[in-house]
Amino acid sequence: MKNPTIIAVDAMGGENSPNKTIEGISLHTKVSTNIKYKIYGNKNIILDLISKYNISKEKIDIIHTEKQIEDTDSALSAAKKGRDTSLWLAIESLKNNETDAMVSAGNTGALFVIAKLNLKMIENIDKPALSALWPNKNGMNVVLDLGANVECNEKNLIDFSIMGSALLKALFENETPKVAILNIGSEEFKGNNIIKNTYQKLSQAKNSLYEFHGYIEGNQIMDGNINVIVTDGFTGNVALKTAEGTANFITSELKIAMSTTLLGKISSLINFKNIKKFKQKLDPRLYNGAILLGLDKPVIKSHGSTDAVGFANSLKVCEKIIKGHLIDKIKENIN
Amino acid sequence: MKNPTIIAVDAMGGENSPNKTIEGISLHTKVSTNIKYKIYGNKNIILDLISKYNISKEKIDIIHTEKQIEDTDSALSAAKKGRDTSLWLAIESLKNNETDAMVSAGNTGALFVIAKLNLKMIENIDKPALSALWPNKNGMNVVLDLGANVECNEKNLIDFSIMGSALLKALFENETPKVAILNIGSEEFKGNNIIKNTYQKLSQAKNSLYEFHGYIEGNQIMDGNINVIVTDGFTGNVALKTAEGTANFITSELKIAMSTTLLGKISSLINFKNIKKFKQKLDPRLYNGAILLGLDKPVIKSHGSTDAVGFANSLKVCEKIIKGHLIDKIKENIN
Repeated sequence: MKNPTIIAVDAMGGENSPNKTIEGISLHTKVSTNIKYKIYGNKNIILDLISKYNISKEKIDIIHTEKQIEDTDSALSAAKKGRDTSLWLAIESLKNNETDAMVSAGNTGALFVIAKLNLKMIENIDKPALSALWPNKNGMNVVLDLGANVECNEKNLIDFSIMGSALLKALFENETPKVAILNIGSEEFKGNNIIKNTYQKLSQAKNSLYEFHGYIEGNQIMDGNINVIVTDGFTGNVALKTAEGTANFITSELKIAMSTTLLGKISSLINFKNIKKFKQKLDPRLYNGAILLGLDKPVIKSHGSTDAVGFANSLKVCEKIIKGHLIDKIKENIN
Repeated sequence: MKNPTIIAVDAMGGENSPNKTIEGISLHTKVSTNIKYKIYGNKNIILDLISKYNISKEKIDIIHTEKQIEDTDSALSAAKKGRDTSLWLAIESLKNNETDAMVSAGNTGALFVIAKLNLKMIENIDKPALSALWPNKNGMNVVLDLGANVECNEKNLIDFSIMGSALLKALFENETPKVAILNIGSEEFKGNNIIKNTYQKLSQAKNSLYEFHGYIEGNQIMDGNINVIVTDGFTGNVALKTAEGTANFITSELKIAMSTTLLGKISSLINFKNIKKFKQKLDPRLYNGAILLGLDKPVIKSHGSTDAVGFANSLKVCEKIIKGHLIDKIKENIN
């Protein structure tokens, strides 16, 4: 690893960019140490924002690009725009060993395709997986795959166990990865054949990276007994989005209860501090930063609609996985 | 349909039964009209509870059974117990046209197997599906399948659209069923082949029962724009349980915010009424009562761990689907 650590930032992707990406960098500079940012995008606009947010010019390097990928681009049309986009060049900097991790809040499909075009897979891993953090009662889960692969075989799910465990270790070095397969029951005979075969193989496999805990059901994801949850990309995506939708539904109902009457408002004011803590624990910006695992360089996807606080958090994820030697950990354990 | 309507109740299944099932009947008698209950289980215990909960003897008929199915029974061992269990006899009463719907809070696997052994499938339906109510911002969704079938083909998903729409119409006669397939994106090309083929067929099919609205993602389930959500039993089960787990996590965090400090407690007291309304809207007992669709008689599964209020709600579901002519609606539309 280089010294200092360098993060490649696609400044132009996502809603309200580059304003939020540059403000996010500014927020991250206040808590990070020994980090530099290679920023890809429209230099004039970015320079104005660098001044606006008071970012030290020593910490940054701007690479001007005229073109950028829009959310409306298909993966194919994005790739056809060629090398001169902020997203492509940011990923290429990883390939050229100029940077240590890259992050974009832009078009997810384009990020996948351009990352796969430019970067190698880690040896012996067949498919990349999208993984993210998901809170539980005791801390955080790593959940994967969240949508990179609609269908997965046994080998993929076993690879996900290893990659997810390495990610957990890189992010939280004191935690022991506890792997479980997402299923519709806890008995060995439940689920489809792929899941049952994976269960058999993981039960027999010996490894020092993680403990295998069998199956987990959807209602146990947030219990905190497991911290690496393995599933195919279809199921993982539905589960994650269903959890988001449920959280939104409940918090909007709660808002109504707390603000539509005078008594509700008074009550909220009195309990302001505790409600704030409650809100913070559920704030999706704190979990922002999904990791595309399986490539031989760290590629991080920020939520497109997050704000500067959320984007800063995805930069924290970049920093942690570089310093936690994520890619080395996966390579050590995959064989 | 007979006059009065008769509901068959397996009194012995589920936690804390028959106490909760009989108390549930008592609660239901207070809001129902022209309903009788055929109650299957231990006559002596049930008679004591009938007195305890002041249920008019004219409304009930008790069929004594010595044996009952335990939650620990496998579906096979349950079926092997034979005809003399409360669950089996309650289902058999449907076959013999002695009752109009049946409900049990007992062993789900046993309920499925014994129902399939005793009852016919509706003509042209290949697989039964488990469906339940799921709240949304504007009212209620019907979601199916929630776990009866791990894998489903196009024909099954199309059948689910019809059965789910008929159920919605039977429960809420003024609603127009709006069907969507649960998927990981809204574009036509997303998802696996089964989903894509189903999308094509439903787009082309003409029917007067429901509107087809394409795909729905997990985060949109509770938005209220769709009210019949179709998916395979694996995905549906994971989604439902994930929503339950998320709701439990949030409400337990909220409880902490509202009760660990004196200010929190005072605030809750002040806003008591609104918080109560909020809690009621999220109370899972109000949505209790899953329906096994596809059989030619109405079989309803109450949650095993619900209480008398929840069990009474599953009796309301029985009443509504009998009076809403659910089975006839499915038969009319399946061809």
